[in-house]
Amino acid sequence: MTVQTNEQLQDELDALNAQITKQGSAVRELKKAGDADAVAEAVAKLQALKINAAEMGKSLVSDEPEFNRKAFDELVLRKMFVVPSFEIHGGVKGLFDLGPPACSLKAAMIDLWRKHFVLAESMLEMECTCLTPEAVLKTSGHVDRFTDLMVKDPQTAECFRADKLLEDAIDSLLEANPTMPVEEREDHLRIQRQADAFSPTELDELLIKYDCKGPSGEAYTPSFPFNLMFKTSIGPEGTSVGYLRPETAQGLFVNYRRLLDLNAGKMPFAAAQIGLGFRNEIAPRSGLLRVREFCMGEIEHFVNPKDKSHPNFKSVTDKELVLFGRDDQLGSGKTKTIACGEAVESGLINNETLAYFMARTQLYMEKIGMDPQRLRFRQHLATEMAHYAADCWDLEIKSSYGWQECVGHADRACYDLEVHSRATKTSMVATQKVDPPQEMEVAKLKFDRKLLGQAFKGDQRVVSGMLESLAESWTDFEPIATKLENDGKTTVEGFEITKEMMTWTKQKKTVHEIKFTPSVIEPSFGMGRILYSLLEHSFYQRESDEQRVVMRFTPQVAPEKCAVLPISSNPECNEIVDDIARDLMDSDLATRVDKSTAAIGRRYSRSDELGIPFAVTVDFDTLNDGTVTLRERDSTVQVRLPKNDINYLLFQIVHSRMTWEDVMKKYPVVSTGDDTEVAAEDAVTVVEQTSRGAFRRPAQPK
Amino acid sequence: MTVQTNEQLQDELDALNAQITKQGSAVRELKKAGDADAVAEAVAKLQALKINAAEMGKSLVSDEPEFNRKAFDELVLRKMFVVPSFEIHGGVKGLFDLGPPACSLKAAMIDLWRKHFVLAESMLEMECTCLTPEAVLKTSGHVDRFTDLMVKDPQTAECFRADKLLEDAIDSLLEANPTMPVEEREDHLRIQRQADAFSPTELDELLIKYDCKGPSGEAYTPSFPFNLMFKTSIGPEGTSVGYLRPETAQGLFVNYRRLLDLNAGKMPFAAAQIGLGFRNEIAPRSGLLRVREFCMGEIEHFVNPKDKSHPNFKSVTDKELVLFGRDDQLGSGKTKTIACGEAVESGLINNETLAYFMARTQLYMEKIGMDPQRLRFRQHLATEMAHYAADCWDLEIKSSYGWQECVGHADRACYDLEVHSRATKTSMVATQKVDPPQEMEVAKLKFDRKLLGQAFKGDQRVVSGMLESLAESWTDFEPIATKLENDGKTTVEGFEITKEMMTWTKQKKTVHEIKFTPSVIEPSFGMGRILYSLLEHSFYQRESDEQRVVMRFTPQVAPEKCAVLPISSNPECNEIVDDIARDLMDSDLATRVDKSTAAIGRRYSRSDELGIPFAVTVDFDTLNDGTVTLRERDSTVQVRLPKNDINYLLFQIVHSRMTWEDVMKKYPVVSTGDDTEVAAEDAVTVVEQTSRGAFRRPAQPK
Repeated sequence: MTVQTNEQLQDELDALNAQITKQGSAVRELKKAGDADAVAEAVAKLQALKINAAEMGKSLVSDEPEFNRKAFDELVLRKMFVVPSFEIHGGVKGLFDLGPPACSLKAAMIDLWRKHFVLAESMLEMECTCLTPEAVLKTSGHVDRFTDLMVKDPQTAECFRADKLLEDAIDSLLEANPTMPVEEREDHLRIQRQADAFSPTELDELLIKYDCKGPSGEAYTPSFPFNLMFKTSIGPEGTSVGYLRPETAQGLFVNYRRLLDLNAGKMPFAAAQIGLGFRNEIAPRSGLLRVREFCMGEIEHFVNPKDKSHPNFKSVTDKELVLFGRDDQLGSGKTKTIACGEAVESGLINNETLAYFMARTQLYMEKIGMDPQRLRFRQHLATEMAHYAADCWDLEIKSSYGWQECVGHADRACYDLEVHSRATKTSMVATQKVDPPQEMEVAKLKFDRKLLGQAFKGDQRVVSGMLESLAESWTDFEPIATKLENDGKTTVEGFEITKEMMTWTKQKKTVHEIKFTPSVIEPSFGMGRILYSLLEHSFYQRESDEQRVVMRFTPQVAPEKCAVLPISSNPECNEIVDDIARDLMDSDLATRVDKSTAAIGRRYSRSDELGIPFAVTVDFDTLNDGTVTLRERDSTVQVRLPKNDINYLLFQIVHSRMTWEDVMKKYPVVSTGDDTEVAAEDAVTVVEQTSRGAFRRPAQPK
Repeated sequence: MTVQTNEQLQDELDALNAQITKQGSAVRELKKAGDADAVAEAVAKLQALKINAAEMGKSLVSDEPEFNRKAFDELVLRKMFVVPSFEIHGGVKGLFDLGPPACSLKAAMIDLWRKHFVLAESMLEMECTCLTPEAVLKTSGHVDRFTDLMVKDPQTAECFRADKLLEDAIDSLLEANPTMPVEEREDHLRIQRQADAFSPTELDELLIKYDCKGPSGEAYTPSFPFNLMFKTSIGPEGTSVGYLRPETAQGLFVNYRRLLDLNAGKMPFAAAQIGLGFRNEIAPRSGLLRVREFCMGEIEHFVNPKDKSHPNFKSVTDKELVLFGRDDQLGSGKTKTIACGEAVESGLINNETLAYFMARTQLYMEKIGMDPQRLRFRQHLATEMAHYAADCWDLEIKSSYGWQECVGHADRACYDLEVHSRATKTSMVATQKVDPPQEMEVAKLKFDRKLLGQAFKGDQRVVSGMLESLAESWTDFEPIATKLENDGKTTVEGFEITKEMMTWTKQKKTVHEIKFTPSVIEPSFGMGRILYSLLEHSFYQRESDEQRVVMRFTPQVAPEKCAVLPISSNPECNEIVDDIARDLMDSDLATRVDKSTAAIGRRYSRSDELGIPFAVTVDFDTLNDGTVTLRERDSTVQVRLPKNDINYLLFQIVHSRMTWEDVMKKYPVVSTGDDTEVAAEDAVTVVEQTSRGAFRRPAQPK
């Protein structure tokens, strides 16, 4: 509903802005004509339109979920979800520690990630080292190109990221000019969206154009590339350069040969890794969203470059995704909601495997409780993508810091395997059965090994392997043949081949298997960013009392599933509490016991702050009839049930086989609404099942 | 039984060696006397004794569990448990990657660690960054003192760890002289055990004494300290030095204040962290046992220095530990098996909390399936311990590389908190209720704040806080008072205090709470070393066929709990296989489906190699009556049971509520012994329950 309204509003606003542009130009015409009265009238009309638009813009914004940063930050720090690292020593920008509740939330997120991706599809998980020798990152291109453009203040020598300065300058400009015509505004936004894709010269010009100045008031130095990797030295001799990996992917690429063998040579297959990455950000900011040490989860799906279908694609064809395609970013500025299957068919998403992973990512986000209204997939602009990449889509999550890339989905073609193959002279070729065998046109090659050896020495096998791989399809080989016939030579992947090096014949061949260097489809998760976004999406204040803050973690991802509280310090009560807690823990349902003397409402609040979805209370009735109350966090509704049912119920809910609705149908509801009002020892009223419609339902993000 | 025999043998060998020493000196006497015949006879007797001793030594060794390194290494590499990092780029010494099976084994080990330590005792888990600013590691002492002594070959400039050269030299010496008298041998071993505790000068002298030479044939350079931390630079300016943390502990110490607040000020409490540590080892070796990047699990238990009792100590008083105390290391060379309670009472282990964690570590090791016969706790020698430490015990695990420290247990007193307190002027003081309140003699202080301020400036509060903390007990304060009375001044924690700075009176006071800087008891786990040791302890070859290798992971720690195999590729069979697997996965029991066309025996072997404890086989009977076979890995015994019972059974076993014995009592046994012999489609023979005694039991390490 709200989305609809918002969209309608946006459409009206767009129309209004067009009117303003039109009226503005009318005013200019009238001024030229010198008709003072008419000008005054037109200007009044223009101003009225602008006021209208500003008002409309406001209600557009206020339709977003409210976010109380002060209350949120207070909770995050007090409960030690996230704290600045080395705080008592003054801290370090861009480094944060996870405290107890975030630590277990992260463990739960990673556990679900493993189940959802790794286990569900038998991916091969690895754990590679962070320390990486220079040769590997030279090969991958990181030593030469993993840079951000940096400028300095010429007086203070303070360093800044040039593209972020540009983005900020455009933000300030737009803020200072709320009535800027839509088209002009869009021009600025287009520049802003491409900020990290400009060349140093282009950026320097734009910084001047937008009048960016350093803290000293002087213009910045020209921009220059700054490598974002942390450098160190491995070994006692001090001669061997190493870096902290900026991503986990390289460890999987260099292990590809062994992984393929372990997979018995079968294609396609995927490898995965969860681990730390390090980037020496020039200007860390936005809380946990841009930090210098972070947890990533990466998947490398190796696939035949000519057949990027996915065996499980049919399970997601109908899954709708919010897509912000390249054309829309440069055009309408609006996203489209399209089913996965349709997006592939229409060519918007390049291939099935890429779309499959995008849908799986969306499902993962929904499973961990991310607000689906604040998720979208943004396609990389042509200028953002590496030359070899086939297509890239970022899952962006909206938080109070705006839309942020949290999961990249890139079809990196054969680039990664090929560069390592060339640098190490290791074959990265895979074979795949053709079933049933097909008759195909191929080129049959015969090499002059001597000539080849003289020309390429140690690279001889790489070159011949490459040519043989091309020769498997006449269509692929024909352009090379033509070139050699006509010019006597040609260049393949940087090697110059001459006509004398080989002869070939076009043949028909029944092909039983094909050989290829696999393409890599890479979903890459920034787990820290996802964690932070989830904290924001989960946070809310109770309508009844703003002081009572809640984390809305789903039972599946909540780090602790249940709180168990005795109503009194009676030893018999305590014993039952311990028994229930031990039972739950034995079934891997993490449980928190709170035997403190605080009022029961206060203890519920404490468990709400940690996002514990359920609370079991042992009271004096428990001693008589063995029943306890079970409270659901968001609705604060309680049911009464035998204590021995708790374990089974919670296990079923946590494993998504049952819902709280089912529980309410099965057991009598004994309390509703604001439980701070419910005196602990009160005989609680049994509410009729029929009145359940009146209960406040779990608050859902708007 | 075998241990007893081994011990008896050792005793006999000790006696024999004493006889050899005696006979040797008799020979020398006879030689002096010039009686050639008597000499010849005595020498013959001596040689006979030596041959006896050498033989006895051999049978002592062969009593150890056999370890086939070749077969083990082959399996570890082929199944990608562990592979050298960046292999195709030539690799880097001391860096290893975990492949799929070790990756999930590690996840299971960590999961159990979390449950056994963190959840069971409500420890506060954190995740701090690896990147650490210099100030923190300067404070902790790592920048100045985290070094190993290094020597170089003067010709080749190759670097070596001086203590390891000494250890190796002693190993070679002893190996070359198998008949060396026991006492002389013991002298060398004593030196070897202290190798890492010598000063540079002492080490240089010993290297000369043991005639250590570099690869070039020349003597080494004098030894010098080499800092083992990886250095880098944080931030774009390049001016801020950082290191990769060499341990996870510092992150917890610097967060102590916040952790205490989160714990509502209650003492004692523990914080924990699992994460990476980095050490630039001079000479990495011994497989995964000495590497440059490793996973640690550390616990910091904060406790009142005057009351190191532990509330749960009674749960472990009877737990027996194999202890290798300081005196025994320098004396008998033998370990003692002592109950925890007794070890604390006799003063062998310094305090309850330290002993409690040692017992919990032992229990953890048993839970993950480590061979208890290859575990011992070795106490640090006085020369090994830091000056501030109260007591240290390493859990050592025996592998084919000998005894290796895998878990440290150190009582580090107040050192860590005090250094950070002083460096950052942050109070690290905790308070604890005295219940019931006690009347105590205290010192009441009155400071001359002006004098104090002049003398200590910014440190004024630290000094006054320290003195006030001492004044809480007259016994602690009296020596200071006496010094001030007599000399007019004294030094406390490096600060010079003069008589003029304060006045004091001795008073009686009813004390309701006391203040103190907590002591830290620190169990520190090298997870990588534990993982590697577990791989060795778990590996065996089937007696029937050496080619069939098995990993003996317990159901609790096995990364995959069950294999599910169809006997044929019949679609109906496959569907049942998928159903069973999905059900198990839904209950968090990781499952491997193997639908390959390999013979069923071959597929069992594959799952044995990965240490999967159970295999379910769906055959043609399943289609008729819904029953399947369930095979136990080590005995290879199979039972037949309804497929719907599988999920419950395995869940109970994995959660230690049921054993395989229980399963065998409940269901008919249908196959025993070497299952490669069992043709897949054979009607399997039902073996009488009474014959079960004849089954080969799971092989246990000797």
